[in-house]
Amino acid sequence: MLFPKQVEIIDVSPRDGLQNEPVQVTTEEKKKLILRLQKMGVKRIEATSFVHPKVVPQMADAIEIIQFCHEIEMNFIVLTPNLIALEKAIDFKVPQIAVFVGASETFNMRNIKRTIDESLSECTKIFQKAKENAIFIRAYVSMSFNCPFEGNICFEKVCYVVDHFVANGADEVVIGDTNGQANPRIVYDRFKALKERHPYVVFVAHFHDTNGFAFANIIAALQAGIDKFDSSLAGLGGCPFSPGATGNVSTNGVVQLLEDMNIQTGIEIGAMKDATILTKKMINKLEGRG
Amino acid sequence: MLFPKQVEIIDVSPRDGLQNEPVQVTTEEKKKLILRLQKMGVKRIEATSFVHPKVVPQMADAIEIIQFCHEIEMNFIVLTPNLIALEKAIDFKVPQIAVFVGASETFNMRNIKRTIDESLSECTKIFQKAKENAIFIRAYVSMSFNCPFEGNICFEKVCYVVDHFVANGADEVVIGDTNGQANPRIVYDRFKALKERHPYVVFVAHFHDTNGFAFANIIAALQAGIDKFDSSLAGLGGCPFSPGATGNVSTNGVVQLLEDMNIQTGIEIGAMKDATILTKKMINKLEGRG
Repeated sequence: MLFPKQVEIIDVSPRDGLQNEPVQVTTEEKKKLILRLQKMGVKRIEATSFVHPKVVPQMADAIEIIQFCHEIEMNFIVLTPNLIALEKAIDFKVPQIAVFVGASETFNMRNIKRTIDESLSECTKIFQKAKENAIFIRAYVSMSFNCPFEGNICFEKVCYVVDHFVANGADEVVIGDTNGQANPRIVYDRFKALKERHPYVVFVAHFHDTNGFAFANIIAALQAGIDKFDSSLAGLGGCPFSPGATGNVSTNGVVQLLEDMNIQTGIEIGAMKDATILTKKMINKLEGRG
Repeated sequence: MLFPKQVEIIDVSPRDGLQNEPVQVTTEEKKKLILRLQKMGVKRIEATSFVHPKVVPQMADAIEIIQFCHEIEMNFIVLTPNLIALEKAIDFKVPQIAVFVGASETFNMRNIKRTIDESLSECTKIFQKAKENAIFIRAYVSMSFNCPFEGNICFEKVCYVVDHFVANGADEVVIGDTNGQANPRIVYDRFKALKERHPYVVFVAHFHDTNGFAFANIIAALQAGIDKFDSSLAGLGGCPFSPGATGNVSTNGVVQLLEDMNIQTGIEIGAMKDATILTKKMINKLEGRG
């Protein structure tokens, strides 16, 4: 087995993590969290999203969070599900945007209220405008292995979305095991095949730890040549539209695993432990995950 | 990544699992557990041990458990730490014995009250007599990666014990991450090197899940050609002589992982889930591990 010398950890705690926690976290607490992430050495975070506060009340402070990231010079990603959100992102000088489309039609309809094709068509417009404004585009494929409504998702459906993203110029493509049902064999096979299909595309792995297999899946992804991973402090997160899904793989766990294996993450373990404790306190969860 | 078509799961719940749980389990309950293991398709278990009841009171019913295994025709292993124990094993027609020696001198002194060399010398006598009686010999190397007292254990120390076991005719050698501090890179490297050093020896991997890396370690061991794994229902176990160590990797988790990957274990998932619930009830642990 060959392993890379270093890996990028993209911490998604402030957005994907907190958005899916039942506890409402204040803007001040979020800023504290982002500062801790910066202090421990995280170079890029998913900070917030431009969605309607009625749909996701946790993200109502998006503009304040964006301004804070600019202030502390933290590189960040903002979820922009439509053109209106993108316009805001442009106005507030967001350096990186993210969009997501499910590989499962049912999940897409329930989550985004659009068919896959409708979502992809919106993405075409978003990508074009983002490119005109030199914004980095992160494109997620949700439910890339299994869907709580449709069961196993065939590889062709994943490719359908990935191919569209690539053709329209995504800067990186995130393959998400949104409900945490993947296993190391399928992870290896799919990432390997995706990299063969698109040799010049940057792929990121996004695992949830529903079955406790997330670390094993990371090992498999590393073998397929993946060296960028999403994670959240203390395994924050879940997915309100994905019954039974638990949180993201924990940043603290992934970093410990990789550092134990002499793979550099650039993250300082002591500061990370402090940040993890802070996160658990923030969501009143001193026991359990992560 | 290449994976084997099938894997043997050796369930160590009745001995290594229960011995290290604070709850005293009755002989009747143990028999129920063993029956469940048989029903779910486990072909070999670590049933009990011949140690003094004052040291390990949970194993005082060794003879009754052995007779029960004979009765239901379950293949089983009994821990026999010395020649007196071996004599008993011979008397009660035990098909497979196990011995263990730590790769760490400090652990060995604290656990067995002997130096490594003294332990190995006792093993020489045990192996000889076992072989005269056609008993299968399973030889454990405890603390094969790290030791709670000595820290990292160098590979030479592991080889010192393994080489002795092999030279004296062990039928299988179990490499134990007794305190659960291994990571996939060292697991792969050590198993690969051991298999190159002793191409005809059968190696078994024995992981504890202290850091949540046990499944990832199993993936690495599979890549090194290992296809036999110890585990316990609901992750029973720990090690009273190994501060901070948690239970064995859970049988239910390993089987789910492998079956998801289309690797056959011969274990029936439904019956396994029932056995897992029974086990948790037995030790009053309905939440948590496994």
